Amino acid sequence: MKNQVERWGVFEVRVDGPQEGNPFVEHHFGGIFRGKNETVQADGFYDGDGVYKVRFMPSFEGAYTYETDGDFPAAQTTGEFFVSSPGDGNHGPVRVANTYHFAYEDGTPYYSVGTTCYVWTMQPEAVRQKTLEELSKGYFNKMRFCVFPKHYIHNFRDPETFPFEGTPVDNTGLSEENFSYNVDFSGNDWDFTRLNPEHFRRLEQAILELQTRGIEADIIVMHPYDRWGFSAMPREADDLYWNYVIARFAAYRNVWWSLANEYDLLRAKTLEDWEHYAALLCEKDPYKHLRSVHNCVAFYDYTRPWVTHCSMQRQDLYRHVEYTDDYRTRYGKPVVWDEIAYEGNLDMGWGNISGQELTRRFWEAALRGGYAGHGETFADPEHDILWWSHGGALHGESPARIRFLHQILTETPGLGLKRGAGSFDEIVGVPEIGDSGAYEIHYYGFGRPSFRDFHKDDRASYRVEVIDTWNMTVEDAGVHSGKFRIALPGREYMAVRIRRI
Amino acid sequence: MKNQVERWGVFEVRVDGPQEGNPFVEHHFGGIFRGKNETVQADGFYDGDGVYKVRFMPSFEGAYTYETDGDFPAAQTTGEFFVSSPGDGNHGPVRVANTYHFAYEDGTPYYSVGTTCYVWTMQPEAVRQKTLEELSKGYFNKMRFCVFPKHYIHNFRDPETFPFEGTPVDNTGLSEENFSYNVDFSGNDWDFTRLNPEHFRRLEQAILELQTRGIEADIIVMHPYDRWGFSAMPREADDLYWNYVIARFAAYRNVWWSLANEYDLLRAKTLEDWEHYAALLCEKDPYKHLRSVHNCVAFYDYTRPWVTHCSMQRQDLYRHVEYTDDYRTRYGKPVVWDEIAYEGNLDMGWGNISGQELTRRFWEAALRGGYAGHGETFADPEHDILWWSHGGALHGESPARIRFLHQILTETPGLGLKRGAGSFDEIVGVPEIGDSGAYEIHYYGFGRPSFRDFHKDDRASYRVEVIDTWNMTVEDAGVHSGKFRIALPGREYMAVRIRRI
Repeated sequence: MKNQVERWGVFEVRVDGPQEGNPFVEHHFGGIFRGKNETVQADGFYDGDGVYKVRFMPSFEGAYTYETDGDFPAAQTTGEFFVSSPGDGNHGPVRVANTYHFAYEDGTPYYSVGTTCYVWTMQPEAVRQKTLEELSKGYFNKMRFCVFPKHYIHNFRDPETFPFEGTPVDNTGLSEENFSYNVDFSGNDWDFTRLNPEHFRRLEQAILELQTRGIEADIIVMHPYDRWGFSAMPREADDLYWNYVIARFAAYRNVWWSLANEYDLLRAKTLEDWEHYAALLCEKDPYKHLRSVHNCVAFYDYTRPWVTHCSMQRQDLYRHVEYTDDYRTRYGKPVVWDEIAYEGNLDMGWGNISGQELTRRFWEAALRGGYAGHGETFADPEHDILWWSHGGALHGESPARIRFLHQILTETPGLGLKRGAGSFDEIVGVPEIGDSGAYEIHYYGFGRPSFRDFHKDDRASYRVEVIDTWNMTVEDAGVHSGKFRIALPGREYMAVRIRRI
Repeated sequence: MKNQVERWGVFEVRVDGPQEGNPFVEHHFGGIFRGKNETVQADGFYDGDGVYKVRFMPSFEGAYTYETDGDFPAAQTTGEFFVSSPGDGNHGPVRVANTYHFAYEDGTPYYSVGTTCYVWTMQPEAVRQKTLEELSKGYFNKMRFCVFPKHYIHNFRDPETFPFEGTPVDNTGLSEENFSYNVDFSGNDWDFTRLNPEHFRRLEQAILELQTRGIEADIIVMHPYDRWGFSAMPREADDLYWNYVIARFAAYRNVWWSLANEYDLLRAKTLEDWEHYAALLCEKDPYKHLRSVHNCVAFYDYTRPWVTHCSMQRQDLYRHVEYTDDYRTRYGKPVVWDEIAYEGNLDMGWGNISGQELTRRFWEAALRGGYAGHGETFADPEHDILWWSHGGALHGESPARIRFLHQILTETPGLGLKRGAGSFDEIVGVPEIGDSGAYEIHYYGFGRPSFRDFHKDDRASYRVEVIDTWNMTVEDAGVHSGKFRIALPGREYMAVRIRRI
């Protein structure tokens, strides 16, 4: 193995061990990693074919030593390695910063613009490559995706891999018309004590591909769209699965934990279950990656101490991201809108809004001091490949606008915005910390003003720019002082940026 | 005078009387009108030049007699007249029907689609004629307008007439930039005891012009946009004014009473004042025309017994007509959204939404069992003539769509719609009374479904039509039964109408 790794990279120790019996439950392997500033104990995992691995993400530079251990002779190893400075684009894991915002561990601000491709890792190679090609365009810096395969409308094909050894229920005859959440899992034959390493290797590969592109991997560990019974396993199976997921993935710096998608639809699970999984994460993840859980109807109690940020789905057709400032107050944590309806043309309202409306929701969320997430659901009768679930090609108009918003956010001072004072018909975003009069973005959403009047300090000068959030332009509107009027084009989705100079 | 009038027409008795002194306060005149089914006592009014008039709207056909009386000899007259059947387009006054809806007194349903031209009656003749030309196109069947002139942005020119004798404050130097609600009225010199009949004749002419076009005259008796002091008169002046307004206008069948526009902005008035004006109306208007009062921020207490319907302005940028069903429940009366932002491009959010968004709001209100109102505020730097205030030419895209919605409403069975059962992402309008499964309009608003599935009774047949509420088309989608799928174009603002046959 390499004896050098960069800070926040993955240092892995691999040993060969017993293959007989069931190594997933009959053996254990782990390691202790010691540097000047930290000592980390990490569980290992069985990767099949007699191979055991343990992974470690160093948070500091310099010399480290390690010892591995287990219940078989080859498990005992020791060694040394050196942690070098992080490479280009490696800023460490994302952490909560300024209460309502995020920054990478090296202090670089992280302005979340997410997307969702629930089961892209389980699609054929060509689809995965197309997904990566789209992701390389820099539209998004977070992606939500599942560990388990998905059974739902537009998701009746079997995945390329399953998480457990066994035989899935026959998928013949499944269709949109007969889809139901009330599935009888008895047609399946799984051994929940034997995981399928290939399934998890694909996920790791995905995490790394995202990492290369500057994208956080928001891993959805459980979800209700299930015909295989993975959403209703007994506690011991859940624990084996959760420990395996944590042992394999936690050392990747771009991992976030989403306990579930739409936790409130998992009929077999109770709040006690979710708190149990959260406790496992708090105990087993040495790196304290971001943790949340996503709702369908009822918000989780985001005040729970283990919840690092709100991961929200809208609860109302008309007003949702517009509550961002209220929810910041209610929960005192970052507000991330992971589901606010998708750009597309499906029959259902969650999947058929316009690119304009989705982009508007992103701006509303951002200027109120929160963050939004994208998804795309254009019907594809020929291949039934929808970005929201499978990845593939993007067809919508919002991704380029989301990238543009992200560029605007990276130009804000400090770390994160909050809603500033403004009239009833605008959203004013100002820096979370500092002199809010020195930097403002006024946003008019679906309003179409042909001008706006401003009244700033008449002893100071302000650089004013007109931002067309849809056409992605920034036009200089001059330097002004005191009272001044800015001409606008009478179109929707305009903003004005004012910076004191 | 004519001795014949049609039912719900105006029968007027005119006498010559004293001109000396102040006839507005020193003399009184009135009449009693008797038919087989009613006896009505009505106050008269002084119309200038020694002319006194009293007006009566008969609610029944057949032979009537009258006696007039007053404190001068010529006031005593008697006579007979005959009330004939109503002419074409004369359906009587609009009344509340089915709790949440309206019908003309002859039982014809009235589906309100309103507009607003606050002070159109005080504009130059050419503007008034242009307004009437637009109104002849049948876009609207209610108009809100004021008795008093308006002082507000885009409203600094003096009106062509004033309601009182006297001299107005100089309007030189008034501009958008220095507009304020905090006006010193002391530059005015009015005699609040002497009304200006010409001002009121113009309003009567307007009421009749609207009546001819099938448009209800929603008269705004008071409002806060004032530099003359009309919003802050003493109680005696208010009473003289209110009595005069009622005596002149009440006999016109298309009159509705709006006590005020944005009552909560009249700083000189209290709730007791509003209840006092309402009591005057209840006492003095023999015909019980519809009565309400319109808010800026705080809704009036629409549960007050004198309030016949809610006259609402939105209280939130994002969700307002979407509360129609809630407000029906709260108030148990018709919900009329008289202000939900205007199509236009003004700087302020109340005056710059798109025609699409305004039309969407009309549909949301209608299918939830309420009614919406239009306004138009496109900046007009050259003439500063905006429909919302002055009338003139319409420039927007919504009026034709509003007329189309009205046509759809007239095709519904029974009298009025209410929100029916539907999924979370659609608004389903069904008849207020009767079998809701027999007639449904499903509306998708800003959603863009490419199809929708339906599940109706499989023992019945249903005629299905696809309505494009923006492009104003109705396309036959066949006859269906049981479960069926309807193809849609994946555009915003679509609806599906389903009728059992």
